Amino acid sequence: MTLRILATGGTFDKHYNELNGTLGFAASHLPAALARCRLTVQVELQQLPLMDSLDMVDADRERILAACRGAAEKAVVIIHGTDTMPQTAAVLGPAALGQTIVLTGAMIPYEIDNSDALFNLGFACGVAQTLPAGVYVAMNGQIFAWDNVQKNRAAGVFQPL
Amino acid sequence: MTLRILATGGTFDKHYNELNGTLGFAASHLPAALARCRLTVQVELQQLPLMDSLDMVDADRERILAACRGAAEKAVVIIHGTDTMPQTAAVLGPAALGQTIVLTGAMIPYEIDNSDALFNLGFACGVAQTLPAGVYVAMNGQIFAWDNVQKNRAAGVFQPL
Amino acid sequence: MTLRILATGGTFDKHYNELNGTLGFAASHLPAALARCRLTVQVELQQLPLMDSLDMVDADRERILAACRGAAEKAVVIIHGTDTMPQTAAVLGPAALGQTIVLTGAMIPYEIDNSDALFNLGFACGVAQTLPAGVYVAMNGQIFAWDNVQKNRAAGVFQPL
Amino acid sequence: MTLRILATGGTFDKHYNELNGTLGFAASHLPAALARCRLTVQVELQQLPLMDSLDMVDADRERILAACRGAAEKAVVIIHGTDTMPQTAAVLGPAALGQTIVLTGAMIPYEIDNSDALFNLGFACGVAQTLPAGVYVAMNGQIFAWDNVQKNRAAGVFQPL
Repeated sequence: MTLRILATGGTFDKHYNELNGTLGFAASHLPAALARCRLTVQVELQQLPLMDSLDMVDADRERILAACRGAAEKAVVIIHGTDTMPQTAAVLGPAALGQTIVLTGAMIPYEIDNSDALFNLGFACGVAQTLPAGVYVAMNGQIFAWDNVQKNRAAGVFQPL
Repeated sequence: MTLRILATGGTFDKHYNELNGTLGFAASHLPAALARCRLTVQVELQQLPLMDSLDMVDADRERILAACRGAAEKAVVIIHGTDTMPQTAAVLGPAALGQTIVLTGAMIPYEIDNSDALFNLGFACGVAQTLPAGVYVAMNGQIFAWDNVQKNRAAGVFQPL
Repeated sequence: MTLRILATGGTFDKHYNELNGTLGFAASHLPAALARCRLTVQVELQQLPLMDSLDMVDADRERILAACRGAAEKAVVIIHGTDTMPQTAAVLGPAALGQTIVLTGAMIPYEIDNSDALFNLGFACGVAQTLPAGVYVAMNGQIFAWDNVQKNRAAGVFQPL
Repeated sequence: MTLRILATGGTFDKHYNELNGTLGFAASHLPAALARCRLTVQVELQQLPLMDSLDMVDADRERILAACRGAAEKAVVIIHGTDTMPQTAAVLGPAALGQTIVLTGAMIPYEIDNSDALFNLGFACGVAQTLPAGVYVAMNGQIFAWDNVQKNRAAGVFQPL
């Protein structure tokens, strides 16, 4: 089993810029995060442009779809912003690529105390290896089908439609 | 889906005692770790005596087996020391309880920098919900059947026999 | 020796709001930060309104001045935003209160990886107990007189005028 | 002002060895700790053999004394184990080197959650620049003269004789 992990940004990868006091994107935290997990499973990490998922346009989702289509691996984990994760899942799902594609992210950036990022990464890496081909959102310790998931922004959690 | 999580100690839950400078056990880190994961999946956390798995004797493994047998949940995650994780798995496997039981742990304690604990917890919570009934060890981003796993102590990783 | 610590917000105390993805203010990190330092020196922690120092107006600085004037302690540490720390120091300095008042803060919030907050807190607590009465800015491991300090925003460090 | 920092080990610099599950010494945490503090004060970091201070013999304390004597800086911070910090201070004090020498350390290793290490480092770097020549122990937010300090092991804090 080999895993492909696609970094696309989102809260997971937000970085604090000390010169202007804002959260944005610099180098992805994924290389360090994966190193600390002491993985022996083969992982191919691919970094796409890192962005806030609220800023994603159709072309960004097409780029993610193309990356999945171009991947030789049967198991793909996508690190994605939470705000439009279901929209990207809705682009990937109908493509029926024959892969197990799992989108996850974080409510708190990896580099901030009390982050859920590492748990979610582990959770997604687990279910990507075990679920049948399809597109899923994996958040809050739950697995959602791509066509039955939404973010409840007031509560900060994912739930079925 | 409801998950039962059994805390049994191991490196995952080691705590630094500042008065004598040793790593031992105090309150489990699991309640805090689970809170930070923002789970909406139902979780029942059950704390058994926390111990170094090198100190486990038959009665300790029988207690873990009894806890699994007594659990109503179909999915069980066991946080366990790495050194004798395969031995406990070998007690649970032949019991054929009809549950998906996943043992995991950590190479670095949860409270120490660069710990793999939270990833492993997420990984185990994922595969416990998706694998068929059976007993598994989930470490290093890999899933091992209970009767085909060993710890390579020199390398600090798990591998098949 | 008793120390008074005034919390006024600033980067030190910024908190990530997971519901809207912004850094703002909630409960101060100071109680937790001080607890971890295992202090035996007597500390009186006083929380003023927490704010970004770019948002401070004259009344805010007067409130800080009043808090210093009302403090019985000879040593006062003020946790303050870095952007206008010299301006507040310039209000406190001429008041000549007969106390040793030390302003400090952080370039990275306390709750974010790689933060300088705890070092700066320790540094300020040290020099507040040892310097003669006066008003100082303590950042970057250096001590500046209140009337000879500026923030170099491009470099993210403090320096003399 | 230039600071010399001597690393001698102790709890501050303990490192978890994941292969044998023990706390020992590897590379010092000081380079990373100092980098995160964004210092503009000039610092010369000198690493002596890292050891548990309970293992120190006379020759080890003589080595520390020699390092102080050989230092051009007027301000010296020594990162030291807490258990015999007063004994080393008692070797340095009578030497009357004309420098401000401040010993500090940590009750919790730098790499473990809730560590006091960074606060103590900041505290010591502050008082080393402000106190008159002499030898001091700086722990728990307090400054002790070298000949009037002891560790209360039951309470885990320093106090006068």
